[in-house]
Amino acid sequence: MIGSLTEDQVDELLRAEWIGRIGCHVAGQTYVVPVAYAYDGEAVYVHSAEGQKLAMMRDNPDVCFEVDRIEGLHSWRSVVARGWFEELHGADALAALELLLDRIPDGGQGGDDGEWRRPSITLFRIVLYEKSGRFEHR
Amino acid sequence: MIGSLTEDQVDELLRAEWIGRIGCHVAGQTYVVPVAYAYDGEAVYVHSAEGQKLAMMRDNPDVCFEVDRIEGLHSWRSVVARGWFEELHGADALAALELLLDRIPDGGQGGDDGEWRRPSITLFRIVLYEKSGRFEHR
Repeated sequence: MIGSLTEDQVDELLRAEWIGRIGCHVAGQTYVVPVAYAYDGEAVYVHSAEGQKLAMMRDNPDVCFEVDRIEGLHSWRSVVARGWFEELHGADALAALELLLDRIPDGGQGGDDGEWRRPSITLFRIVLYEKSGRFEHR
Repeated sequence: MIGSLTEDQVDELLRAEWIGRIGCHVAGQTYVVPVAYAYDGEAVYVHSAEGQKLAMMRDNPDVCFEVDRIEGLHSWRSVVARGWFEELHGADALAALELLLDRIPDGGQGGDDGEWRRPSITLFRIVLYEKSGRFEHR
């Protein structure tokens, strides 16, 4: 059986998982990259060092965010969302950091959350404006 | 330690995994979708029912293909490739089907590979013309 996830099931998957993939596109090039995230019901919060994905999302903030849980060829669920990239600063960035450290399994591992506070780390969110989900189950 | 995968490590990850994500883009919309795949060293082979991803790739065959293996926040490897979508027909489609059935853990489960031969299923490949990989390990 293949079908669509309800709105609640979409939210449930976004809250349950912590790895998603961002899809972004600039100048004819599509780029997909896995990220750790936290979800607050409206947006996903992500941290990143400077690099290609940040450069691309600043150029074109209309991105795709995808999450899946795949147990087998015929047993999976996935969510595909569209969202707007927004860089976070100051108190917003700190709040995002707390969310992430709470959410990610080894976020605080080895007491190394200091590195997350380095100036070279950028916090951002993707505000999801369209979400849908699909599943297959046997 | 964060770094780049060698060409061999990129190929190794593409051969070891069987779930990847295709990123495609048409008319301002980026779409990311998980797929089961088989890799032969040059292209990834995928089957799909008709739907949004096939429609988009026919419109814009220059796509992204991403594979990752994530064990923790600081323990992961990922490959991002660019490739060209090519629909397969006749003997090429059958060969792709064999590759896929061989590769996918429950591909032949329940003797249901008959459904893969339905006319509504499209076989295609993405010929990878640029690959790179990154890893983090502690």
